[in-house]
Parts: sequence; structure tokens; C-alpha cells
Amino acid sequence: MSAILRAKAQEVEALLEKTLPPSSTPPSIIHEAMRYAVLGGGKRLRAVMAAAACESVGGDPRQVGGVAAAIEMIHAYSLVHDDLPSMDDDDLRRGKPTVHRKYGEAVAILVGDALLTEAFAELARMPEKYGVAFETTAAVIREIAEAAGSQGMVGGQTVDILAERGMVSADLNNLRYIHAHKTGALFKAALRSGGLIGGASEKQLEALTRFGEYFGLAFQITDDILDVVGSKDALGKEVGKDLEKGKLTYPSLFGLEQAREMAKESADKCLQALAELPYESRVLHEIALMVVDRDH
Amino acid sequence: MSAILRAKAQEVEALLEKTLPPSSTPPSIIHEAMRYAVLGGGKRLRAVMAAAACESVGGDPRQVGGVAAAIEMIHAYSLVHDDLPSMDDDDLRRGKPTVHRKYGEAVAILVGDALLTEAFAELARMPEKYGVAFETTAAVIREIAEAAGSQGMVGGQTVDILAERGMVSADLNNLRYIHAHKTGALFKAALRSGGLIGGASEKQLEALTRFGEYFGLAFQITDDILDVVGSKDALGKEVGKDLEKGKLTYPSLFGLEQAREMAKESADKCLQALAELPYESRVLHEIALMVVDRDH
Repeated sequence: MSAILRAKAQEVEALLEKTLPPSSTPPSIIHEAMRYAVLGGGKRLRAVMAAAACESVGGDPRQVGGVAAAIEMIHAYSLVHDDLPSMDDDDLRRGKPTVHRKYGEAVAILVGDALLTEAFAELARMPEKYGVAFETTAAVIREIAEAAGSQGMVGGQTVDILAERGMVSADLNNLRYIHAHKTGALFKAALRSGGLIGGASEKQLEALTRFGEYFGLAFQITDDILDVVGSKDALGKEVGKDLEKGKLTYPSLFGLEQAREMAKESADKCLQALAELPYESRVLHEIALMVVDRDH
Repeated sequence: MSAILRAKAQEVEALLEKTLPPSSTPPSIIHEAMRYAVLGGGKRLRAVMAAAACESVGGDPRQVGGVAAAIEMIHAYSLVHDDLPSMDDDDLRRGKPTVHRKYGEAVAILVGDALLTEAFAELARMPEKYGVAFETTAAVIREIAEAAGSQGMVGGQTVDILAERGMVSADLNNLRYIHAHKTGALFKAALRSGGLIGGASEKQLEALTRFGEYFGLAFQITDDILDVVGSKDALGKEVGKDLEKGKLTYPSLFGLEQAREMAKESADKCLQALAELPYESRVLHEIALMVVDRDH
């Protein structure tokens, strides 16, 4: 990761540190576990992208704090629930025991619920905390809720689980659905929310949407590839799990080489979308290049 | 339940029927299961109270549709997650198999997540669908999110689980915390949200808050009592589970008679709060009387 992306990720980390309720807030176990689930790692891509999208249309990125915190909480909740024994049953996440391994399954379910809820509370505080207009606040909440819900991220996770259990067919259509919804929807919502706060035009929102869609695709294909060729140390989680579970992936459908090519093409489409925005965004540019070259 | 409360509950049922995505929306299993979790039963007290609170301060209850649907989705999500094997491990809810018994644990977790998310999407649609002001919309979302989160409903469920496992002491302080948060917070948020949409003054909001707090208390004490003296047929769920699990309850702490007396006193406090509102609310009046006399 480049120095600029690392610095941006650290800013988001500091924001989350400040925004999440302190561990001492009762009941302290849930707040301690919420902080454990969210803090201490991650590239914070969604939050960084939201701020960069706002800047790329001429807005003030300091107004995006609520979206940045909320979207990272939503991402973290989705990981906590995805890791549960009845879902992907993962023991490690970012090199640490998953929340249910550390705090038990009941607390992990509640932590996910609490993070999702707190995300919307934080979004509703945007007018007061970040001077976002009330109308924009409602539009952003709708954007993010629709992206995270049953026709967005949760829908993608549902089809993923069904495919893994052989309850829907493991074909390209379903693979595309899973990627667009499970990963793409939240990236897209982060970018569009940043754009909305920055006062983007319809055309600019459309370019940000396209960036998000292709970025999500490139990101997920790379994720699939890393499960095959990555190292446990770099990824901070077990590798080879997709194959072990017979999970639908781009490498399993197309082979490694073609999957790499497809990720690369999607990243190129991202750069094309960026060219349509009024302010050059170095951050979004680097993110688009980084996505296919990352090792974690 | 009185005829008027039954009619109001049916109106809410029709609203939910219309508001939830149809089962045919892909992925259909999640939408089918969301409808299974929400529709077909329940007294819809939270939704009915929101509309009645709006009327009691002179507002138009038709503007409360978003709150009514959202709060019932949040209530339903909390039941789906509370029923999970790693939480209360219940097989029956409203006389039907619980969501995880019917659809499996993974889908049940996702259904809860989806309902919680959809609730906030629906709230964010209030300006468009129900003509609620943008500023009021943000205030209502904040109210409901804070009531449902880690310092509200989820916090109450956390302490409930900890108490059941002997991880916090089973004393009156914790019992009060659990009731005020697990049940009271959402009742209070329903009433206050209805009040906010109806344009309530600070003093009126305060009276609605008091109604909600005492109502929540009366409701939960009665719930505890019904687990001892109720019938499985009337309740649509197993009885005696609290005792079996050594769960902290009002009857276990105070005995049945004194618990009944405490529920009655709380209901009286509700009636006192109602007297401070500008428009007499027959619905809120009946709800306060009904809560201690119900058999389910």
C-alpha cells in the first residue's frame, strides 16, 4: 500500500477510535467487543473512497466523517456475522481470533447487530456533527441502507451461502450476482454517499457508480485469487478455504490467468470512470491500481 | 385484546404486507423468510403506539407509516436473533417454528440483519413516502437507532444473556437494566418518534417518554409472569423456560403476587402520563389497561 493510502487509512482509524463508544460504556463487554471487531487493521478502503469521492466532485471531505465511520462499522459487522460457525466458520480475521472465537457466538451476533445499528445512528448525527444538510442525510442513509440490505450486501451473502451448500447452481450468473452485491454494493454506496455530500451532479454520480462497480469486481476477483495463491501471514486468515469448500470463485470458473486478466480489465475501467470527474483524485487512482496488485 | 386494538393491529399488518419486499424479489429465500419472520401475528403494539402518540399531540397518524413499519421490522429482527441456538435457543414463536428452525441458522442470521437494515431504509424513505420533514426524519432515525443499539435494546439483550450465564449478578439493578433496555427502549422510541412526527413539544415528548418507560416495565413484568402462569397455547411459545434456565425475572425476585402489584402500579403511571397530553388517546389508554391483563 502506498504512503498516501496508508496515511488515509490511519486517519480513518483515528476517526473510528473516537467515534465508537469507549469500552467503559456499559454494558462494557459489548463495547469492548465492538471495538475489537472494528479497530486495529484493515485498509479502510470504503471510508477512504467516500472521502476521495467527495473531493473529486469539489466537496469538503471533512463532511464525510459520518459516512466513513458508518460504512466501516457496516463492513466490520458483515465480517463478524460472515465468520460465525453457521456461516463461513472462520477462526482468524486480520491475524486475530474472530469475534465469536474470542467472545462467544452470542456476543458476536450482538456485536454485529450493534455495529449495524450504531452505523445508522452515526449517519443520523451527520447534520449536527458534520454540518451535512438534512435532505442529503436522508439520501445518504437510504443509499447505504439499500446497499447493505437484502437486495444488496445481505442478498449477496445469502446467494453465496446457498451456492456453497449446493442450493443454487454454481454458474457465472450467480457468481456475478454474489460479487456485485456482497462486495460491490457497499463500495458503490461509499462512493455515491461521498459524492452526494460533495454535491455531485447526476453525471458525476454515474461515474462514481461505475468506478464502484468495476472496483468491487476487481477487488473480489483478486480476493478469490489470493485465496489460491496468497499466504496466510500476509492475509491474516486461512487460505485455500474456498477450494476446500468447493466455493464458486473466478479462478475455479476461469483459471488463474484469465481471472487475473479480468481483474486487470476491471481496474482499467475504474481509471476510465475517474477521467470523467472534475477533480483528479490521486487517492482513487492509487486505489484502482492497488486493487489488483495487493497481496492482502 | 379490544376490538379497536385488533383493528389497529390489522392496519399495521396490511402496512407491513405492502412495505416488505415481495417473496418473488431475488434472492427469494431471504425475502420469503423476512416475510415469515414479520407477518402473521403479534399485537403490533409498537407500531400502534407510534401512530397513537402522533395523534395524541395533534399530528396526522398517516405520516407515521414509515416508523410503524420500521419499528415492527426491528422488533421482529430482535426476536429472530434472540431465538437463535446460541442465544435463547427457542423452537416456537407465535405458534410457528422459529426462523432458524424453518430456514436454518445462517438464513436466520441474515434475515435479522436484513430486517434491521430495511427498517432504516424505510425510515429514510419517510420524506418521499409519508411527507415527513427531512429534519424530523434525521431526528427519528437517530432516536430509533440509539434505542435499538448497544446502549439500548442490544445492550439489554447482552446483559440478559450474561445474567443467564452467571456472568453478571442476578440482582434487581441488572433486572431493571435488562427490562429498561431490552423492552422499554423500543417502546419509548416508538412513542417519541410518533410524537416527533406529530410536532410534540418538549413537555409532551417527556410525557410520552414516561408512558413508554412505565409501559415497558409493566409489559416485561407481565411477560415474566406469563412464563410462570401462562399456557403454551395462548402464548404460542414454550412456557417455564425462564425458571428452567434460572433466568432473572420479577416473579423469581419478588414472588408472583408482588410482581403483579408492580405491573399494576406501572400501568397506573402510564395513565397519569397520558393525562398530560393535549388529545385524549383511547388507544394508548386501552394499551395501558391491557398490558397487565393480557394472557399472551
